[in-house]
Amino acid sequence: MSQALFKGIIAYPITPFDRETDGIDGPALRASIDRLVNDGVHAIAPLGSTGESAYLSDAEWDEAAEISIGHVAKRVPVVVGISDLTTRNAIRRARFAQSAGADAVMVLPISYWKLSEAEIVRHYSEIAHAIDIPIMLYNNPATSGVDMSPQLIARMVREIDNVTMVKESTGDIQRMHVLHQLADGEIPFYNGSNPLALEAFCAGASGWCTAAPNLIARLTLELYAAIQAGKLDEARALFYRQLPVLEFILKGGLPTTIKAGLKLKGHDVGAPRRPLMALSDDATARLGALLEAVQ
Amino acid sequence: MSQALFKGIIAYPITPFDRETDGIDGPALRASIDRLVNDGVHAIAPLGSTGESAYLSDAEWDEAAEISIGHVAKRVPVVVGISDLTTRNAIRRARFAQSAGADAVMVLPISYWKLSEAEIVRHYSEIAHAIDIPIMLYNNPATSGVDMSPQLIARMVREIDNVTMVKESTGDIQRMHVLHQLADGEIPFYNGSNPLALEAFCAGASGWCTAAPNLIARLTLELYAAIQAGKLDEARALFYRQLPVLEFILKGGLPTTIKAGLKLKGHDVGAPRRPLMALSDDATARLGALLEAVQ
Amino acid sequence: MSQALFKGIIAYPITPFDRETDGIDGPALRASIDRLVNDGVHAIAPLGSTGESAYLSDAEWDEAAEISIGHVAKRVPVVVGISDLTTRNAIRRARFAQSAGADAVMVLPISYWKLSEAEIVRHYSEIAHAIDIPIMLYNNPATSGVDMSPQLIARMVREIDNVTMVKESTGDIQRMHVLHQLADGEIPFYNGSNPLALEAFCAGASGWCTAAPNLIARLTLELYAAIQAGKLDEARALFYRQLPVLEFILKGGLPTTIKAGLKLKGHDVGAPRRPLMALSDDATARLGALLEAVQ
Amino acid sequence: MSQALFKGIIAYPITPFDRETDGIDGPALRASIDRLVNDGVHAIAPLGSTGESAYLSDAEWDEAAEISIGHVAKRVPVVVGISDLTTRNAIRRARFAQSAGADAVMVLPISYWKLSEAEIVRHYSEIAHAIDIPIMLYNNPATSGVDMSPQLIARMVREIDNVTMVKESTGDIQRMHVLHQLADGEIPFYNGSNPLALEAFCAGASGWCTAAPNLIARLTLELYAAIQAGKLDEARALFYRQLPVLEFILKGGLPTTIKAGLKLKGHDVGAPRRPLMALSDDATARLGALLEAVQ
Repeated sequence: MSQALFKGIIAYPITPFDRETDGIDGPALRASIDRLVNDGVHAIAPLGSTGESAYLSDAEWDEAAEISIGHVAKRVPVVVGISDLTTRNAIRRARFAQSAGADAVMVLPISYWKLSEAEIVRHYSEIAHAIDIPIMLYNNPATSGVDMSPQLIARMVREIDNVTMVKESTGDIQRMHVLHQLADGEIPFYNGSNPLALEAFCAGASGWCTAAPNLIARLTLELYAAIQAGKLDEARALFYRQLPVLEFILKGGLPTTIKAGLKLKGHDVGAPRRPLMALSDDATARLGALLEAVQ
Repeated sequence: MSQALFKGIIAYPITPFDRETDGIDGPALRASIDRLVNDGVHAIAPLGSTGESAYLSDAEWDEAAEISIGHVAKRVPVVVGISDLTTRNAIRRARFAQSAGADAVMVLPISYWKLSEAEIVRHYSEIAHAIDIPIMLYNNPATSGVDMSPQLIARMVREIDNVTMVKESTGDIQRMHVLHQLADGEIPFYNGSNPLALEAFCAGASGWCTAAPNLIARLTLELYAAIQAGKLDEARALFYRQLPVLEFILKGGLPTTIKAGLKLKGHDVGAPRRPLMALSDDATARLGALLEAVQ
Repeated sequence: MSQALFKGIIAYPITPFDRETDGIDGPALRASIDRLVNDGVHAIAPLGSTGESAYLSDAEWDEAAEISIGHVAKRVPVVVGISDLTTRNAIRRARFAQSAGADAVMVLPISYWKLSEAEIVRHYSEIAHAIDIPIMLYNNPATSGVDMSPQLIARMVREIDNVTMVKESTGDIQRMHVLHQLADGEIPFYNGSNPLALEAFCAGASGWCTAAPNLIARLTLELYAAIQAGKLDEARALFYRQLPVLEFILKGGLPTTIKAGLKLKGHDVGAPRRPLMALSDDATARLGALLEAVQ
Repeated sequence: MSQALFKGIIAYPITPFDRETDGIDGPALRASIDRLVNDGVHAIAPLGSTGESAYLSDAEWDEAAEISIGHVAKRVPVVVGISDLTTRNAIRRARFAQSAGADAVMVLPISYWKLSEAEIVRHYSEIAHAIDIPIMLYNNPATSGVDMSPQLIARMVREIDNVTMVKESTGDIQRMHVLHQLADGEIPFYNGSNPLALEAFCAGASGWCTAAPNLIARLTLELYAAIQAGKLDEARALFYRQLPVLEFILKGGLPTTIKAGLKLKGHDVGAPRRPLMALSDDATARLGALLEAVQ
């Protein structure tokens, strides 16, 4: 399998919950995935931060993974978030994802106690050795509580066979520079910070991992196309056009704002799981205005 | 039940795992609790950060809670950590702890997505309404990812009936000052930052929540006694004497260092759960030297 | 000269400016110093942060130093702030202060470009070699832009002959602990963070460098006396009583708030120098209420 | 005068000191300026951070300003750094620069005591009212100690007549986004963070204020030309080629590293002023290797 499997717009579906049972709402999940694939995104990334993976029981996680991978049905590549606090359960999930047909897994080193570099390396190694599909290493200290330096990241890509891609969500463009320098541009890196979409592509990112396509798929795809075509002025204009939406969904929390935005677009996918709250009416109105402005 | 139930040295037991099964090691857990009670600590706080609560399955958590509360057997008061990422499971644990005989529960607002103040308040309220025993609100952004301001904390103590105590682990003495000022000294606050033990007592803390008694119970108790007796010079000398140990266990991670220290003292309680690693041989030797210096 | 020359309450006078000429207002400066000495403070520290030293021309600095040292007239010891961005001018000021009769000088490594450890050490060494009186090393990254680690500070005290005292204004009690540990309690350290007054004394500080005595001399002296007498409960009560004033003057900027407070007490010492503004009427009213509450 | 006077590469000359007298070395300063102009930079910015403006006496500052403006002699536009801690002296310098023929002045709100928004606005207003030439507002909290929000910056551009340009040196690309959004792209902004050169241009920066042309003028000009021509791939390659040099000079301090680099290129401009140190031999060798790699 080639590293080039993932590029462009890699979209995060939400995980809808049934209003009655609070369990996974399968039909709504399938519909969410269909919308993204039909809109033309280049890959699907279920059970990431947007997918409220951290809030699911193991049984729910398995169910959502199976539905998601099965329903994409190879129309586009799938990278599944398998992160868990314990190495044991992360391995279990990685194997489950591979069995269910995932093209790759994404691994964030979630922590309660801060992890040492040795602990992080062992965590990734043990997961990598348990599966055959590639790993997208994911750095997002704001949610994981662990910040991996570009040096540590480059070392793991070099030393652990199937760690082949890196997703950076710190929003710090200098880390992408360092990563580029440490590997002579040979490590494919993906940007996970929405308001950095333009500049990460300028700096050489292979793709943009984002929940935005749930609401504004066309704009994200056009931005990527403009960059590919070397049309910098057009890319900049497209970026500034969608930036208010990108900032809004980041600031309000992705599950919360994306679910509210989907409802505004006529797709009721329920609320995020408690303690997360549904977006307030005021904020929903602001989001509605932002979405209308970019139609 | 009086708020004064908790004061002085509130000790955290570790959670030992069986080397074969990786499950809870009941006999070792009971022995750990006995040592703390026999050494004279004023209360026991199972399933906190030190107890690797975040790394346990629900079944394991229930087992450890039942063993711990049952084995303390009212010799001293027990406050059980019931924190969970979802409100639903935090409520389940809180009820379990109450049924098992806990005197109070400790609640940290663990997060993946940052929580708004409204989300935090609802989380505490729903837990509080589900039980009858008091809640010790716990602020520790380094592990939870959520930082509650003293203003928010004071508001919850005021507004939610059985939130009656506050544990602060930021290590920022100014927050204790603000909390004192917001409530005219009426909210009992507990210090959860080991290297702040002396000054938090000086500032009026009711107690010190700490894993240190697993290794140096006598010194922690003598510090508290000196403060109670108004012997500031003696308290200062006792504090600086134990400070190297306190700094070491904080920096190395409490489950990791306390388990290593217990082994040094002849009590083999196994390693922390992966991805956490056992303390390295070098670091264990340094810990051994520090412990010997304070005998 | 003994290190014990400085202990207890070390008070910062403001530098009053003449409303007409914008130059140093000598009579008002002398009166400010007299009030502090008469109120019983243990030492005077002219031309520190509170004294707007950074905003003075060289000629003005010399004038203020000469007036201050001369007017204290050995009634209490004097430590003069001689900090300047260039080593050359810092040396010039240090020599001037020594000639004028200062007992010690206080040196903050003011920076524009961040200084390396080697640059900091050379700066202190060259000043030290140019004078015979002791140096109080001063760490205050919020105003200087340079943060010296306790390790670096301890090294300079050890290696540079007349660097004998340390003033810490970071408000981080752990730095005082480290300093204590690095020198077995042998380096006299002074607290420069007003809201840390109680705990710094608990941790062993020799003195409190503060502008508060301009407004509430008695309370600061009583706090020190209670600590000296080992009356911790009384010290705590005194501290919490004055804390609102301490927080207010810190937050509003010392020259701004102290000058406003002095005017409230009937001593018109003018406004701080532009771009600093006089305290607003609203804030002045709040300060008035705080001061009244502690009479 | 049009805002478009400044665009592209705005170069900072260093201020050379005479080894004997420690005064301004006029001939070396003139030669430094000539090299930059002859290499084709689009504007000259004397007495900025690189020019050690903060370390000069008033007489030295005047001398350097007069030489610099006079020697550029309208070959390219000149923007002079007139920042000073007091409003009074900043005004004096701004008037001096205008009289000497500067096209614009650059103003950083240097602080000792943190400035409130009202104090910052008054500082800029009073300077603006004292002169007729435009002001480039300069935000660089790392050296000034004051961080101006994009909101405050946009407000001052709107409200103060001759504040017409903004230089951002925080290295935070999101601030440029906010500035763009607040003014519909109408405020010309300049990037002052060397390692952000590529992305700031992508985000729409009008120019790059940089000391790098002292050492690698051609590369900086080629990067700008590639961006202007819409050749993103070429711009990216040029950026990564010069990035090691940009990172080195930023990390080592601009006066220190640029002076060392100039010496490597055969132009001895002396050392930076104490407490700043000349670059160590080891670091100079590393810089030499980096410069050779990009020839």
